[in-house]
Amino acid sequence: MTSNEALEALRDIVGSSQVLPAADAASYLKDWRGEFEPAALAVVRPADTDEVARVIEACAEAGLAVVAQSGNTGLVGGSAAGDAQREVIVSLERLDRVREVDVDNATMTVEAGCILADAQQAAADAGLYFPLTLASKARCRIGGNLATNAGGLNVVRYGNTRDLVLGLEVVLADGRVWHNLSGLRKDNSGFDLNDLFVGSEGALGIVTAAVFKLYDPIVQQVVALFGLDDPADAVVLQRRLIAASGHNLTGCELMSRQSVELACAHIEGCDKPFAREYDWYLLAELGSSAEGDWLPAIMDSVVARAKYENRLRDVRIATDAASAIRLWHLRESLPPAQVAEGASIKHDISLPVSKLPTFLSRALPAIKQALPGVRPCPFGHVGDGNLHFNLSKPAGGDDSAFMAESEHAHQVVHDIVVDMGGSFAAEHGIGRLKVEALARYKQPVELDMMRAIKTALDPDNRLNPGVIVPKL
Amino acid sequence: MTSNEALEALRDIVGSSQVLPAADAASYLKDWRGEFEPAALAVVRPADTDEVARVIEACAEAGLAVVAQSGNTGLVGGSAAGDAQREVIVSLERLDRVREVDVDNATMTVEAGCILADAQQAAADAGLYFPLTLASKARCRIGGNLATNAGGLNVVRYGNTRDLVLGLEVVLADGRVWHNLSGLRKDNSGFDLNDLFVGSEGALGIVTAAVFKLYDPIVQQVVALFGLDDPADAVVLQRRLIAASGHNLTGCELMSRQSVELACAHIEGCDKPFAREYDWYLLAELGSSAEGDWLPAIMDSVVARAKYENRLRDVRIATDAASAIRLWHLRESLPPAQVAEGASIKHDISLPVSKLPTFLSRALPAIKQALPGVRPCPFGHVGDGNLHFNLSKPAGGDDSAFMAESEHAHQVVHDIVVDMGGSFAAEHGIGRLKVEALARYKQPVELDMMRAIKTALDPDNRLNPGVIVPKL
Repeated sequence: MTSNEALEALRDIVGSSQVLPAADAASYLKDWRGEFEPAALAVVRPADTDEVARVIEACAEAGLAVVAQSGNTGLVGGSAAGDAQREVIVSLERLDRVREVDVDNATMTVEAGCILADAQQAAADAGLYFPLTLASKARCRIGGNLATNAGGLNVVRYGNTRDLVLGLEVVLADGRVWHNLSGLRKDNSGFDLNDLFVGSEGALGIVTAAVFKLYDPIVQQVVALFGLDDPADAVVLQRRLIAASGHNLTGCELMSRQSVELACAHIEGCDKPFAREYDWYLLAELGSSAEGDWLPAIMDSVVARAKYENRLRDVRIATDAASAIRLWHLRESLPPAQVAEGASIKHDISLPVSKLPTFLSRALPAIKQALPGVRPCPFGHVGDGNLHFNLSKPAGGDDSAFMAESEHAHQVVHDIVVDMGGSFAAEHGIGRLKVEALARYKQPVELDMMRAIKTALDPDNRLNPGVIVPKL
Repeated sequence: MTSNEALEALRDIVGSSQVLPAADAASYLKDWRGEFEPAALAVVRPADTDEVARVIEACAEAGLAVVAQSGNTGLVGGSAAGDAQREVIVSLERLDRVREVDVDNATMTVEAGCILADAQQAAADAGLYFPLTLASKARCRIGGNLATNAGGLNVVRYGNTRDLVLGLEVVLADGRVWHNLSGLRKDNSGFDLNDLFVGSEGALGIVTAAVFKLYDPIVQQVVALFGLDDPADAVVLQRRLIAASGHNLTGCELMSRQSVELACAHIEGCDKPFAREYDWYLLAELGSSAEGDWLPAIMDSVVARAKYENRLRDVRIATDAASAIRLWHLRESLPPAQVAEGASIKHDISLPVSKLPTFLSRALPAIKQALPGVRPCPFGHVGDGNLHFNLSKPAGGDDSAFMAESEHAHQVVHDIVVDMGGSFAAEHGIGRLKVEALARYKQPVELDMMRAIKTALDPDNRLNPGVIVPKL
């Protein structure tokens, strides 16, 4: 079948206005971080699950591979198509409905093209709460959240995307549809396929909808910012805050001095939080959907003990919404501040929470030795053991000269992470960006299992080829 | 290789005293519910993961299949070996250590042969809390909990076994070992294989150890028993209790009038909870690890509103431990009371919580029509949508005549469950008992995926053949 015949077959399914030639599809052929220059034969925009299935079937017949895409805001090139002749991007944008909110079951059925913020709003409109939230929530879409098992700011309390999923609807490589949207909280009838598809980056099937667990809106909250000398104190504080609050630590973000300095330098509304600077800052939020006002007292009690033990240098506590937003603004300004400062080499690593201090004590000197003048800006979700160990270029340094050190930097950092049993891809995934690192760092036995499962579910390698599964 | 040569090879690995011929292995060849008469060539008791791996390899060479077994208390014949010539039971009892408790990471690494109650105690000894709990906790072992994705009494708050797992150590079909015990709370480096092995009933690999999330001990609690006319009120109450308490509903058990009557008739210490009887009872427990005493007020508030709306007939609230234990004793007495009453046909079903009332309004008349005189004793975990829809024989009826109706009863009940989008295997699993039902009720596309994954990871069908995956 020629390319033109294949495109004609796709037009027959979705209508000719929904098949965009690559030349008219710039927004689908962009890579969020600019690491890749995506290429595809066309972008196809099916209207519903049935059209997705027929598109997949038609692509299989035409010998075309399929790259599923929803918001295209991923950070590892997972939706960056890579072949202008043999790959088609299937955009799920038009599958954007919230199909159902079941209040008594506390669940919501959402299509893959729904924008995350819209899904949050649908839950709120029903008096419930969808806790998944990311910086890109106004732009990212549920399909990508599922494909990457997105993390974000609330994981310490509510888990990753996977932990919120009760069921999926998936179009398989042969175009058949698996329907599993019943919304069961217990089901041991067979292997757990839901969790296999979540986080599989479109390489095992195309998720078209999901049932999510919902929670209840937060009605009491307290936010505190701590100035610390030692990240080990952050580990102790997160553990105590979880215990004392009854697992109501809803945010727990560690910020290094350098990362906060850049935010204060570049981002409006960011002021130095204390009269003097500290090496580390910890932002902690307690929140509960239970009526009451006991969380501030719990925060005070944890703070008092930590002061007594000399574990914290300074603290600011926000009990009203406006002050809480100001503290969070500092945290949310760290990534844009790093962009504003110029070249930045990024790492998305995780370790057991208990090992973060040791990791920092190994990785910081190692990276300073490897990249003289580098300014490490580690920050992130300490309650999940997940740090964005980002490195800003030397002050006034050249962007491209610094970025040329990326591979070197990755190896220094990831070698330490893997040596300590950690992950070099904690929440952003593998995509095309880290597929070689995966081949390097994973145990052969795990690589073999991944390949065996990929072959079992996508024997012709038609779903997002080159992503997540290293080539043999 | 002859059987004798194979046994000799196994003795070389584990020592001759740890290879038991079937004749000396009665306790490993029992089926907890008496549905099967297990048979195996021998029982092998390896000392550690390395010995497990070598045993699997030796069995593969000898052409023997392997049935992993830990506590052997499962309810669906998942560890009931089925071939006296070609199957070997690998008992994991000797892998019974708690390898580590990491307090700052709030995790625990436990071997598959550890008794559940011992794992709970290890967490408690470290000041933490392992929430998985089952009636069989003094006898069941972690390996079986993982193999069946065990549920139990705390799922409404803490999830199933799968939700507590952060990583696994697994011996694969070819004897290689996958090491994934780092205890990461975030790791998107590849497919999610942990959740695939959990609940796979030993058919994809043999789990030898796991890292579990830990929580904090409960320090405030209130338990209430409600008398209700309508199970729909139980659904409303569970939703309100979750919302009002900030997701601190730790137990939520629905009990039918008949089930409570049998408990009061047969089990010591069970007294009628109210002056009159009600069609339904709901046992609800709120618990939190946060210091304080606000839960009783939250319970009072939910009760006051429900009374005002005429949603409950009667209530007993226990705020001290002794009264709470008495209320729970009633719930825990339901299964032994059904045993004492004679023949009982069992169903382990789930639906969205919101659909349970409709299910009961369909299934109760249908089963009464199908089995005249039957006494339905539904009870279970209403907060998870999971009911044990058990049926006691007609009063004074013949046990074996009633049990002869089992298949008929299963079909009536499961047809309704599946028609409503529910599961006929909610928490006990498939094992050998329900593998035909799985073949009948599952979508072909899901059966195909299960078979493809089974073949990918166990190409020679050597791991627990006949369990969970229907034959082609």
